[in-house]
Amino acid sequence: MAEEDTARHRARMQRKKAVIEERIARASLERGVFLLHTGSGKGKSSAAFGVLARALGHGMNAVVVQFVKSRSDTGEEAFFRRHPAVRWYVMGEGFTWETQDPARDAAAARAAWETARAALTDPGVALVILDELTYAFKYHWLDLEEALAVFRARPFHQHLIVTGRAAPAALVEAADTVTEMGLVKHAFQAGVKAMPGIEW
Amino acid sequence: MAEEDTARHRARMQRKKAVIEERIARASLERGVFLLHTGSGKGKSSAAFGVLARALGHGMNAVVVQFVKSRSDTGEEAFFRRHPAVRWYVMGEGFTWETQDPARDAAAARAAWETARAALTDPGVALVILDELTYAFKYHWLDLEEALAVFRARPFHQHLIVTGRAAPAALVEAADTVTEMGLVKHAFQAGVKAMPGIEW
Repeated sequence: MAEEDTARHRARMQRKKAVIEERIARASLERGVFLLHTGSGKGKSSAAFGVLARALGHGMNAVVVQFVKSRSDTGEEAFFRRHPAVRWYVMGEGFTWETQDPARDAAAARAAWETARAALTDPGVALVILDELTYAFKYHWLDLEEALAVFRARPFHQHLIVTGRAAPAALVEAADTVTEMGLVKHAFQAGVKAMPGIEW
Repeated sequence: MAEEDTARHRARMQRKKAVIEERIARASLERGVFLLHTGSGKGKSSAAFGVLARALGHGMNAVVVQFVKSRSDTGEEAFFRRHPAVRWYVMGEGFTWETQDPARDAAAARAAWETARAALTDPGVALVILDELTYAFKYHWLDLEEALAVFRARPFHQHLIVTGRAAPAALVEAADTVTEMGLVKHAFQAGVKAMPGIEW
């Protein structure tokens, strides 16, 4: 790069640095955040588990409640269950097209919610992950308003992550950080099997 | 739910189950997949680290190369570095508006790429994560065509995850599964500080 270009680059980057530093200085609140991962692309649950690893690395503890998944042979569960700071609950009955029984689905969701509520009212829990919770609202297994009230009343420094497709608008409204995981393409569409270590 | 509704629900779910099972049966290829996490929302790196946890849970090993990050105090590094199946390399010099020195940025990226290439040609490595690699193409620190050739030639069963904003079109084309992490909102915009365990 020519010397003049380098000088121009430096000037541009100095301006960018000043803007970014001002924004960082303005962000001064310290409190628990509510992350919502929605959309139809891959990454909603895995991003939650990545944050879990990050939190554990800072010495935090966590409760994970899986609302739909019923399988207990996933890599994430095998990996995190042995960690002493994690309590991991698989409380789903499988996808609703597997059970074909709405009463059973609803009962499983209500039982999972009681476990979630116990964590959400416990100031000793630093991070709560409610994996695939959104389906419980979609199928009316749980009352959204009741859940939002529990989220709002949770301990001040407790972080919360909710995952699942098609998050209702009120949930998006209530969350602090919302990512829409958009499906651009998926290996499955090209005939690749769900690979262990990647999909489960 | 009335009995008739339950019967209708069951019939609908049986049809859905049949469609899904047919799709699963058609997806029969077993090979390494290339995941790309792009977009401006939160979750690109954390989804990679969640997949890392999942892979470790299945007894796999992994190499992680961070191209831009220079800090070594992140929760994810503290957490994964102590795992015997993970090799973790922080090889960035910080964001380009921090260094303000394009020659230094480019040299760091080339050194990181050599580490990445060693992993991508080693059939003993099950999963390679190249965190924030896309910036190396954006700033022309690395040659995209050269990188794509190495990706294509990697061991058949090796999985690869690339993260970073603004992925070039050829990278999207080369990947098997691409998620666009869309920013709906971020706690930072509401004045919340980057919280340990959540953002780093």
